[in-house]
Formats: sequence, C-alpha cells, structure tokens
Amino acid sequence: MVPRYARAEMTAIWSPEQRFRIWFEIEAHATEALADLGVVPKAAAQALWDWWATNPAIDVPAIDAIEAVTKHDVIAFLTWVAEQVGDQARFMHQGMTSSDVLDTCLAVQLARASDILIADLDKLLEVLKRRAIEHKMTPAIGRSHGIHAEPVTFGLKMAEAYAEFDRARKRLIAAREDVATCAISGAVGTFANIDPAVEAHVAARLGLTVEPVSTQVIPRDRHAMFFATLGVIASSIERLATEVRHLQRTEVLEAEEYFSPGQKGSSAMPHKRNPVLTENLTGLARMVRGYVTPALENVALWHERDISHSSVERYIGPDATITLDFALARLTGVIDKLLVYPERMQKNMDRMGGLIHSQRVLLALTQAGVSREDAYAIVQRNAMKVWESDGALSLMELLKADPEVTAALSPQEIEDRFDLGYHLKHVDTIFARVFG
Amino acid sequence: MVPRYARAEMTAIWSPEQRFRIWFEIEAHATEALADLGVVPKAAAQALWDWWATNPAIDVPAIDAIEAVTKHDVIAFLTWVAEQVGDQARFMHQGMTSSDVLDTCLAVQLARASDILIADLDKLLEVLKRRAIEHKMTPAIGRSHGIHAEPVTFGLKMAEAYAEFDRARKRLIAAREDVATCAISGAVGTFANIDPAVEAHVAARLGLTVEPVSTQVIPRDRHAMFFATLGVIASSIERLATEVRHLQRTEVLEAEEYFSPGQKGSSAMPHKRNPVLTENLTGLARMVRGYVTPALENVALWHERDISHSSVERYIGPDATITLDFALARLTGVIDKLLVYPERMQKNMDRMGGLIHSQRVLLALTQAGVSREDAYAIVQRNAMKVWESDGALSLMELLKADPEVTAALSPQEIEDRFDLGYHLKHVDTIFARVFG
Amino acid sequence: MVPRYARAEMTAIWSPEQRFRIWFEIEAHATEALADLGVVPKAAAQALWDWWATNPAIDVPAIDAIEAVTKHDVIAFLTWVAEQVGDQARFMHQGMTSSDVLDTCLAVQLARASDILIADLDKLLEVLKRRAIEHKMTPAIGRSHGIHAEPVTFGLKMAEAYAEFDRARKRLIAAREDVATCAISGAVGTFANIDPAVEAHVAARLGLTVEPVSTQVIPRDRHAMFFATLGVIASSIERLATEVRHLQRTEVLEAEEYFSPGQKGSSAMPHKRNPVLTENLTGLARMVRGYVTPALENVALWHERDISHSSVERYIGPDATITLDFALARLTGVIDKLLVYPERMQKNMDRMGGLIHSQRVLLALTQAGVSREDAYAIVQRNAMKVWESDGALSLMELLKADPEVTAALSPQEIEDRFDLGYHLKHVDTIFARVFG
Amino acid sequence: MVPRYARAEMTAIWSPEQRFRIWFEIEAHATEALADLGVVPKAAAQALWDWWATNPAIDVPAIDAIEAVTKHDVIAFLTWVAEQVGDQARFMHQGMTSSDVLDTCLAVQLARASDILIADLDKLLEVLKRRAIEHKMTPAIGRSHGIHAEPVTFGLKMAEAYAEFDRARKRLIAAREDVATCAISGAVGTFANIDPAVEAHVAARLGLTVEPVSTQVIPRDRHAMFFATLGVIASSIERLATEVRHLQRTEVLEAEEYFSPGQKGSSAMPHKRNPVLTENLTGLARMVRGYVTPALENVALWHERDISHSSVERYIGPDATITLDFALARLTGVIDKLLVYPERMQKNMDRMGGLIHSQRVLLALTQAGVSREDAYAIVQRNAMKVWESDGALSLMELLKADPEVTAALSPQEIEDRFDLGYHLKHVDTIFARVFG
Repeated sequence: MVPRYARAEMTAIWSPEQRFRIWFEIEAHATEALADLGVVPKAAAQALWDWWATNPAIDVPAIDAIEAVTKHDVIAFLTWVAEQVGDQARFMHQGMTSSDVLDTCLAVQLARASDILIADLDKLLEVLKRRAIEHKMTPAIGRSHGIHAEPVTFGLKMAEAYAEFDRARKRLIAAREDVATCAISGAVGTFANIDPAVEAHVAARLGLTVEPVSTQVIPRDRHAMFFATLGVIASSIERLATEVRHLQRTEVLEAEEYFSPGQKGSSAMPHKRNPVLTENLTGLARMVRGYVTPALENVALWHERDISHSSVERYIGPDATITLDFALARLTGVIDKLLVYPERMQKNMDRMGGLIHSQRVLLALTQAGVSREDAYAIVQRNAMKVWESDGALSLMELLKADPEVTAALSPQEIEDRFDLGYHLKHVDTIFARVFG
Repeated sequence: MVPRYARAEMTAIWSPEQRFRIWFEIEAHATEALADLGVVPKAAAQALWDWWATNPAIDVPAIDAIEAVTKHDVIAFLTWVAEQVGDQARFMHQGMTSSDVLDTCLAVQLARASDILIADLDKLLEVLKRRAIEHKMTPAIGRSHGIHAEPVTFGLKMAEAYAEFDRARKRLIAAREDVATCAISGAVGTFANIDPAVEAHVAARLGLTVEPVSTQVIPRDRHAMFFATLGVIASSIERLATEVRHLQRTEVLEAEEYFSPGQKGSSAMPHKRNPVLTENLTGLARMVRGYVTPALENVALWHERDISHSSVERYIGPDATITLDFALARLTGVIDKLLVYPERMQKNMDRMGGLIHSQRVLLALTQAGVSREDAYAIVQRNAMKVWESDGALSLMELLKADPEVTAALSPQEIEDRFDLGYHLKHVDTIFARVFG
Repeated sequence: MVPRYARAEMTAIWSPEQRFRIWFEIEAHATEALADLGVVPKAAAQALWDWWATNPAIDVPAIDAIEAVTKHDVIAFLTWVAEQVGDQARFMHQGMTSSDVLDTCLAVQLARASDILIADLDKLLEVLKRRAIEHKMTPAIGRSHGIHAEPVTFGLKMAEAYAEFDRARKRLIAAREDVATCAISGAVGTFANIDPAVEAHVAARLGLTVEPVSTQVIPRDRHAMFFATLGVIASSIERLATEVRHLQRTEVLEAEEYFSPGQKGSSAMPHKRNPVLTENLTGLARMVRGYVTPALENVALWHERDISHSSVERYIGPDATITLDFALARLTGVIDKLLVYPERMQKNMDRMGGLIHSQRVLLALTQAGVSREDAYAIVQRNAMKVWESDGALSLMELLKADPEVTAALSPQEIEDRFDLGYHLKHVDTIFARVFG
Repeated sequence: MVPRYARAEMTAIWSPEQRFRIWFEIEAHATEALADLGVVPKAAAQALWDWWATNPAIDVPAIDAIEAVTKHDVIAFLTWVAEQVGDQARFMHQGMTSSDVLDTCLAVQLARASDILIADLDKLLEVLKRRAIEHKMTPAIGRSHGIHAEPVTFGLKMAEAYAEFDRARKRLIAAREDVATCAISGAVGTFANIDPAVEAHVAARLGLTVEPVSTQVIPRDRHAMFFATLGVIASSIERLATEVRHLQRTEVLEAEEYFSPGQKGSSAMPHKRNPVLTENLTGLARMVRGYVTPALENVALWHERDISHSSVERYIGPDATITLDFALARLTGVIDKLLVYPERMQKNMDRMGGLIHSQRVLLALTQAGVSREDAYAIVQRNAMKVWESDGALSLMELLKADPEVTAALSPQEIEDRFDLGYHLKHVDTIFARVFG
C-alpha cells in the first residue's frame, strides 16, 4: 500500500483493528448459535455481546504482544478477548478452526471493499452521464489509428465510458457475490466438531451466503474471480485515462485535466499543463492488473489447503482494493472537472480542410450520374490539393470551383455534403440505449 | 495452437472457412435488413441467400489470392462472393465498415466456443457427480499443509471439484453474455451511413444482443472479461490436476490415472506409472492463464480504435479456447477413469497409528473429569510413542493399556473416540448442498 | 503460431523434421563418444554417420505412425532410424534417458533461434544508426507528458532506440548463454548408466556448454530467464512502435510508415494512412510479454522433474521466438523506410509561437539585472498572449515590442534566446557516447 | 509493503529520509561539479557539504508540509535545504530537471538493494554448500513425476539448488549493472542547460555509470530487466520451497522445517508440523513474479517521457526488493536448520522392495545370456509380486529364490545389482563441477 494512493475509508477495512472487530463479530455470532444449540451456555454469548456493547477499544499492541509468545494470531486474539470478557469467554471458538475465522473475515472485508467500489462506480457513472449529456451534441473528430476518420461528439465518448463502467459495475456485483461466503466447517470442512447451523447463523448475521462445500478454507477460485474482475475494471480506467491523455496533447488540446484559473503552469510556459492525473491512473491500472496473476496462482492449493495463498492475500487484498478505490475516485474527479474545448474540437475537425467529407461528395457525384471511376478521380485531385496545403485550402471551396463538380452538383448540394448533422442524426438513439 | 492439444470441433470454429461462412451470414442478414429498409433491392438479399442455399464450398485459396492484391481481407472476401453471386452482390456491405463484420464475427466465434466449453463443463460435472456419489463414504485422510489432519471422504473431494466447476459454468455463461454482442454501426459507431435497424436485425438472426454503443469496434473490456474468466477456469483445472498428481505419488498412491490392465509400465518397474495427463493439464493451465494479461492490455485502445488488439486476438482467440476445451475434455477423461484405491486411503489414514483421533480422546478425558493439563500430558506421552514408532504402535492400544486413561474411560469409550463415523456424519448435508 | 506473423527461417527451427535432425545428431554424437569409451562398437557410430552422409529425408509421417503405437516420441524416432540404418543402430541411446535428447535438442533450438534474433537486432541497429546519422541535426520538439517541452532532434530519438536495442542485444547474448547447455546425465542426473564424457563430447560437437548439475532435466530457471529477456525486448519494440504511432497522428504527422507514391489511401481521404504496422507491433509485444509468466511458472518442477513444463514449451518455444523474429524484422522495415517530415517537425515546434524559449528569455532578463519577480511577470504576460492566440502571435515579436524587455535586452539579444543551436550543442557528445 | 515480510536494512533504503539523503548527495555533488566548471561559486558547494558534515537530521514532516503548498516534491526538498543551509543553497539544482534527481536516486536505491540481495544470495549459497557437503552421500530416492525413479543423494539436491542460486547471483549482478546509471541531462536529455561533465562527476561519486543517452528520464527497459530478473530468482525460491514442502509431507517425511525440541506440535498430534515457512515462500514468489508485468508495461513511455511509470515504481521498487530480501533470508534459515532424516530416506527407498533396481537385474540377465524377452518376463513376474505386496516382499530375495534367475546369476551377482554405490559413483564429478 502506497499512502499517497490510498483513501481513508477503504484503508480502514484492512487495519488490524478492523480485522479484530470482524473476528469478534464472527466469534460472538458463532457462540450465540452454539448457545442456541445448547453446546455452550447462553450466558457465554451474552457476556460477549455485553462487553461489545461497551464499544471497547481494540488494543492491537496488546494482542500483538500475546502473538509474539503464542505464535498464533487467532489464539492471541482469543486470549486477549478472554482477558477483557472474563471466564465466559472460554466457550468461544468451540469446534472452530482458525481458518473459519480468517476466511470469513476476508469475505466480510472483500464484501465491504466491494460496496465502496460500487459506490465509487456510482459516482463515476453519475459524472460521466452529466458530461455526456452536457456534450451530447459537441462535435469532435472521431479517430481510428490516431488518424482523423469521421465526426462523433464528445458526449458519445462519455457515453461509451458510461456503458463500459456500467458493465464494470455489473461485473463487480457478480464478483462480490462470488467472495461473500461464510465457512465455519472445522479443520477439513466436515463439520466434525461443529454443527452446520452455526455457519448458517453467522452467515445470516454478517450478510454472507453459506459456502456449500469448503475444505479447511474457502476455495480460492472465488477470490481469483474477484481480483480478475478488478483487473478488468482497472483496464477500463486505463482506457478512459488514455483518451484524456491523448486529448490533452499539445497538438490536439481538445480537453485538459482541470487547473484553477490562477494556477501557474510550469515556469513561464503557459502551455505546460501535463495530464499527470491520467498518466498516474495509467500506472495504477498496471498495478491492479499485476495482482491478477498471483490471485490465479492461488487457486491450486494442495489437498484440503496449504497456506501459500495467505501471504499473497496480505498484499493484494489491501493493495488491489485500495488502489482501485483511489483510481476510481481520481478518475471521477478528472472527468467531473475536465476542461473541454469545443472550439478546438471544431478547429481540429476543420484542420483537414473538409477532407473528412470527401466520401459523401464521392457518393453524391455517383448518384448524380458520374461514373464511379470519374467521381473518384475528381474528388481525389481536389482532396490532394487540400492535403498538400496542410488544411489551408478548403475542399468545399475547391469543389465549388471545379467545373466537373458543378456540372453535376449545385453549390447547395455540395454544401449539404459537408453537413455535420448527417453524422450525428443517431446520437439520440445511442443515448437512449445507454441511458434509457 | 498446438495440434496435439486441439480437438476438431473447437478448432473448426477458428478455420478460415468457418470465418468466411460467418462473414457471409452477417453480410447477407445485413443486406436483408437494408432491403427491408428500401436501401437496396430485395432481389439483392434474395440472390445472396439463393446462392447460400446451394451450400457452396468456400474457396479459401481464391480469397487469399485476391487479398494478396487488394491487401484487405474483407474486400477480398466480398470480391470473391460477388464473383459467385453475380451483379446483385454489389449491394452487399452498404454503409458498413470492415470492423462491423470482423467484430460481429468474433462475437459469433466466441459465443460458439463458449457453447462448446459449457458442454465440456457439463460433461465434467456429470463425471464428477458420479465419482462423488460412488465414493461419498470412502474415507480418506484430509490434509492441510500436506500433513495429515482429520478424515474426509474421497467423495467430498469430488464434490468440492463439482461445486468449483459449477461456479466455472456460471461464470462462463456470464462471460459468453459479455462477448455475444453485435455491432454494425459504421466507421466511428455513429450509424452515419447505416440505419441501426440493420444491426438489430443481424443481432437477432445471429443470436447476439445489440452493442449499445460502439466506436469503430466493440469495446474490448468485454473480451478481457471473457479471457480472464477462462484463466480462472484454467486455474480450477490446475487445482484438481494437482490433487490427482499428489494422490498418485509413490508414497501416497490413493488414486492413479487410468492404465489398461495389460499396459506395461516403464520397463520392469511396475510402479512407474506417471500422472502425465494431470501434469500436462498443469502446463496447459499456465498457458490459458498467460493469455489473460494480453487480453487486459487490449482494452485501452486509442480513441475510436487502434488495431493493436487484432494480432493479440489472432493468437488468443483460438489458443485460449482450443486449449481450454482440450484441457476440460482431458480432465473429464482422467476423472471418469481414475483408479481409486480405498484400501490405500485407509492404510494411509492408519499410518499414524490413530494419532488423528488424539484430539477426541483429549476431549473425552476432560469431559470425564481429568484436568485439561493432565489430559494433555497423558495423551501427549502416548502419542509420542506412536509417533516415534512411525505408526507401528497403535494409539488406541496404548491408551487401553494406560492406567491413567482406563481410570477415566472404559475400553468401549476409548474405542468410540476412534470412530470414523464421527467425522463423516455431515457428509449428507454437504452433498445435499452441492447436488441439491 | 500465427502464419501471418511468422518467417520461414525461424519457423523451420521448430518443424518436426528439424527436431528429428537435431535428435539424430545428438544420438550419433553420443554413440561416437560411447564408442570412444569402448561401451559400443566403433562400427555403430560409423553406421549412423554413414547413413547421415547420404543426406536422408526424414519421414515424419512414418515416425508419427510408430509413435501412435509406442506412445513414446523418442522410441518412435529410434525405431525409425533403426529401420533405416540397420542392426548397428541398436547401440544408439545406450544409458541415455529421453530427456537427455529432448532437453539438449531444445537447447540447440533456442541457441539457433537466438542467433537469428541477434542477426535481426544487428539489422535493426544498422538501420537505426543510419536514420540517426541522417537526422542527427533535424530539430523536433521534445515532449514530456505529450506536451511540448524543449527541442531535441529526430536523430536523437533514433539514437535512444539504438542504445536500447544495443542493450537488448547484450541481454540476448546473455540469455542465449543461459540456455545453450547440454545434459546427458540419465534418469535422475547421476550418470549412473552413462559416463559424463559422453555429455562433454556431445556438448562440444553441438556448441553447447555442459550443464554442471541436472536432474532428469535441465533446470528451467535458464529458460525462464530466456523468455523473460524476450519479454523485455518486446517491450522495447512497443516503445519505438508507440513513438511512430504518435508521430503519425493526424495532428502531429512528423513521420509516417512508408507508403508507395502511387498507393491509394483509404478511399478518397488522402490523409487516411494508418500506422497499422506499428499498431500491429504493439499487439505482438503483448503476446511475447504474455509468454513470460508461463515460463516463470515452469521453474518450480517437482523433485527431479515433472512434465508440466513440456506443454508450455510446445507453445512458447515457437510462439515467442517466431513472433519476436517477425516483430524485429517488421520494425526494421518500418524504421528503414519511415517517411520523416522535417518541415512538419519545425512547424509543430513553431506552433507555440516560440513559447518553448520563454525560459531562456526569463534567464536573460534576470542576468540583465531585472528582478526575478519582475522578469517572470514580463515574460508571463507576453507568453499568455501567444498562448491565447493559439500560436498565431510570435513571442519573439511581442518581446521586441515590449518596452520593459527592450530596456534590458537588445533585439539581437532577444533573438539569440530563440536559437535552436543552444539546445543542440551537445548532440555530438551524445552521438559519440552511443555510436563510439 | 507488508511489515511482517520486511527486514529493516532493505526497508530503510526506501524510507523518505533515505530518499532525501540521496537527493542531497546528488545535488551537492552536482553543485560541486558546477563550481568546478565556474558556473556557480565554489562557496556554494562548500556550504552544502559543511552543513552535511554536521550530520543533520532530515525533517520529513517539514518537507512534506512544504510539498503540500508547492505540490512539487523536489522543490519542497530544495526549499527545506535552503532554509537549513542559507543563501548559498540558491545555486543548487542549476540547469537540472527534477527527473535528474529522481531517476539517479532510484538508480542508487536499486543498486543498494541489489547489494543486499547479492549478500543474501551469498549467505544462501554458503548454507546450501554446507548442507550439500554434509549430505553429499546421503542416499535418497530420485523422483520423476512424483514417482520413484532411481537413487540420488540429498546432497545432490542441495548442489542443484546451489548451482541455480549461483546463476541467480550472476543474473543479479548483471541486473544491477543495468540499472546503476546516472542521468543529469536536463528537461529532454539534451544537456541544453547543464554540462555533461556534471553528470560524469555525480556518476563517479555515487558509483554509477553514465547513461549514454537519456530523454527526460532513464529508459525503463533497464528497470524492466531488473524486475524480470527478480521474478526469475523468486521462481527459483519457489522451486526449492516446493521441494521442502514435498519432503515434509506426512507420507514422505524425509526432511522438515526446523522446530525446537520442546516445541509443541498442534495440540496432541505430534506429527502436525506444517511446512509453513516454505508455503509462505511459495506465496511470496508469486508476488515478486507479479511485479514483472507492470515493470514490462512501464517501458513504452510516450515520447521523451510520461509519468505513468512513477506510481508503478512507488509500489514495486520497495515491494519487490523488500519481499525478495525477506524471502531469501527466510529460505536461508529454512535450509540452514532443515531437519534431514536419512533413515526415512532409506526407508522410502526400500519401500518398493528393491524395484528401483529391477532394470539393472534385467541388464545382468541379458549379459549372462538370457534373451531380452525371457529376461523381461522373469524380472516382471517377480517385480509384480513385490508391487502387489506393497513393498512387503523383497525383489532381491524373490530373485534369489527364482531358479531361472539363479541359473544365470550367482547370489552375489544378484546382490551386486542392488548396490547403491553404482548410482552414486559420479557424485564426486558433479560436486567438482558445482563447487570447483
């Protein structure tokens, strides 16, 4: 975890204190269920909850000190709780295995992390929708291969991103469902020493589903799917960040990351405003993607479990969720305040002197009876002049002055072929599809 | 694609001929829709379908020869079709862009590949279920960290795999849905030269959904999610393959990949039967996982598209689906015919002289009034003797001969603590969860 | 392997025929050494070489047919050779294990593949050097974050690439050394049934070094290092390809992939020349990188070997080397024929109206006695005018007309600050470092 | 960075304080060189070193507070230093760009990290060599595919690991050389505002080589190669860790991670000693490998630089080196104190009743004149009896009792074929190769 790429709410999920709080809740709910089954006294569960109701601080250093002796984190925690709660605490954890607590805790953490990420996506979607509608009809050149193609609108770019992050949201909900399971099934998953009813109770209380069949641990294909999904979402972040980086290039400059009016650019060069936030997002996306493979390698544990997955999860559990949360929030801020320059978009589109409309002229000539070969030659020779002038000449004006063209098309007919509206007539349809 | 790891049906999806067949269907359906809109003559669509009804062979070399001249695959194909169909073919492809054909074709291919993979999973699930039920109550030692823990059954191992591949199936269905979209939206996705109704028509005919908003291409987060899902499934294959490899080790030998009764082992050593199929599956899983990152890197295309994704997909489209199909079928065969040795499972379980039951004895002593400290010391000293004998001594017999034990527990009470049934009492519950 | 991204010479290394040829050489050299040791008759080795001297065709289908029966590739090959050579062939392979042949063959293949790749790099370096010298003093704007910074030269860009691929060459030589080892050490690497002198002999004959300690196989950290190195080289390819893609953007257009004078751009739009080769290289780089992780996962084989690495190598051995060979050749062609537009480079540099020189003016004013605060304000207000004019105004002209500037600096002194030569004075030094 | 997988010395390299110390050294050395060139007063450099000689504490919070205002880390640092040093400090950083400091600092950090890692490898090699020599002639069964093959020695396993980590050491030295370069070349690498002599001076003082050609930054193929090398080393760690995990399995138990004599196993089961350290190493290896791909993706920066690499390096710079350092130290401890059980190795080897020698008997019979077919049948039928007895019968005894065998071989001749020494006769040769 890199502090500068971390936000408080998500980071808190992974703090030792928070982990111990979840452990307690699991143990207390389980004790409650054991009491219902008559395995332990009702007073034991009551004692735990009574103490909890006092909203006790978790003394992490004290627990760590015990662990230094016991060499076992869960036992250290239980020992500390027993010191606080007293004699009744000895009924905790009966028939359970450490992984029951650890894996169920991880499920709670990943579910809560998912909730934050889903809320992040909701905010991003809201901003994308607003900017999409704002620029629904702001014309901009569409580019394939980095080369001017045909007109689109800036709103369409935002709508594409909206649709992509809406898919991200659906995928994240599915991924959350995948990891939000509870296993309290004992040393090898057979419930030899604990009734399945305990698992069902804890699951219900924590908002998890019951893991149908566990070994000592919850199967790691679930977590692999979760982290793979984060990797896909990170890649979508990179896509939108790359778009902004391109648009902010000196030669393009159709949009810029926000800078305040009074803000100084780098020294005396006012153009030196760098897309550092979206470059940063590009790097963060690489990291979140990088966590996918370790998560995939975690799946093939040996037999009923080995513990190789554990160290991996100590890294990627926090790192992937904290980084993605930060990245989504940063991207939302970038889009929210993105400086959009419609005039420059128009200027860039005009930069080719109208060449982007040459195909429509070609078609019009053909429809007016000129042979396809002749039409092509006519358009091509005018287009080449525009091209060689580096956009100083206008294709429309050249065509209006070309007798072979005017023989077939009236000035108005020529002008009609340079109509941007032709390209934008289905924007409403697309917006209706995306935003309903 | 490595021929020895490829099966015919899946490979066929990626053949040039099959690709051209799908291209034709897309073009013909589109022409049909254009005819309905009055943009092209109805006779044009009819001519295409009439030719198609003759079930014509696709002359791949002829098309390749045209491409060598035109340097454009879609144009080469259209030219060849026009040669076959005649004049009416000139109305094909009107207002469309090459990517409309290429991306929609890829969607069809991935959807069909998914259908094969889902069928593969169905077969694997069927076999896993059969072996699970067959060995539902076949006891085997459960292992954590490769070390004996407590008893499970071999059927439980199969049930775990069943549940995991059932999740794989659900994920694959979701991934299929993600990629099975149709885009016929023109050069930059604005439908400038083609009515959205064409897209809707083609989508319906090919069993795809309409891509709500495309650029020149279908967004690649969809494909990234698809290949990431294959990577997760491959990891689950590796997990089950690794289990078999462990079980077949000389010292464990609880199960073996099938060999026919008369089959010779390596030279004179009858024990030299190697788990080569599951080792192979381990390697194949690495490959399918390896394709995930390139797919993730494909997402951030520039602006309305660049073509960097195309070469990647020429590799991983076939390689990932063909390899996974082969691996699923191979795994199904391995499980179907797996030689399972219940006697050896029992022998391995007994190998520790009953130490796996020591905890239950400890508990029984405590419940019989022995202090926890004393009980621990009693059990521990007997357990150590068993351990040092390398399993030659029996913990149960030692306990029956220990006066401090017999003072607290009757011989029957001691024997009861060595009851396997205690560990297996919830197997029914778990099976009901998994198999319904 | 994707045929369109494969060249004949590299592909041939991986053909079945070539593999069998290498196998034969290994076996024949080994038999020769065994004869020298008196283990087998000299006539046996002679018989093998006599047959080989007839330059026999390798009948791959015949060998495959035998393998279909024996289920063992090396035995099938030996059987076929025996059929050709006759009785003396029975002395082949004595004391050897299949992996001795397979792993040593792979070493030969990777060494030969390395030689081709090194030659590829030599050609690329030659072309880069030529273009670097050609454009040593062709000024172009340097960009950080995609934003104009200070001037460089196009030759410097080429020199950077030269230095990077020169490092690639050194790394590849080291990687080749890593994999070019010979192991003929028997079933578990102990030379139980074969004298180490055989290994030494075969290694010397095939230009390999002796593997100091093998198990049944050559350790796979060697191969991991090899493929990781290819992944780094692929990333360098992507870097240069990305540079070309940027330079070819419509708005930048400082360079273009070659197109022949008569070649048609897409339809009527003469600007529609897409950087498809470098986009393709970007995708190919993703693939070669994607093979790194499977190679890393191959290292941790179980005990003295498991065969999980084998399937992985059947894919990535050919795919990584063939793809990288193709990519290097393609990149060489792109750079060799790259259309470079110095006028456009100048125009882009001028596009900011001279703002890139503002810092030098600031410094000159300070040195002429103006306070830093005042100097900054003076430069900034003129720079802002230029910026707001979108480059239509000239910073130099504005400064010359600003009394506060002219009070401190003469027109000549102002002009001197706009001297490109200032930025290029150390280009010679850098070239001397790179090219010697 | 996960604190429990971090050691102090390596972690210190990446602390803010240490980074600022390196920054200062770079700036002070540069100022010194500038003074030598007459660009700044000699007193300026002297003032910096005078202050440094007081061994001042670095006030990180104070610098952070300045950065919160300036939004620029290098400027914040320079400002703080100026506050400490006084007026002479204004000559620092003249003509330099932030990346000159940042990238050269990273080079120093990676070089120092490499030195620690090389020292780690030296310790590991020393321990491996000691254990190799200790167990040079301790026989153990060699396994291919997890199945018993032929005898090796435990010392050979250690020698293999020694050779592998010796290669790791060579690779790391090469990787260190790759990243230990100094660039002080200004905003776009042209030395426009700073003489190359400054770079040469700083490089010499910091023990770096001069970067022949930089842009604004040092090219990232260097760093990619560095992190790829760490990934290969991590994979070698995984290999040795996996070997230990296998050897510690309940059924194998040829070696165990150390536990102190009085240490309690899990509860009453004395066999429950888990290979948790080597399982942990397996997970850590996954993480270090996971950092390779982000490093590869960092290579293709745009033009003269974009800043996307920076966030990636903030993660993987510390995480990869700290994790690998910890893993190497942990592995060294595991091997150093590994409990090795030669009796169990012998017992496992005998477990097959001598089947591992069957091939030598077969050969002896053939050499004694029995036809190969008959010899095979004789050996096979005895071997099958041994196999079916699960090792209870002895192949040697059965052969001695088989008239067809005794007709050809004397009892002594039979016994000779069961000689372990036959397999170990070249161990000396191999050790001489590995250890010199």
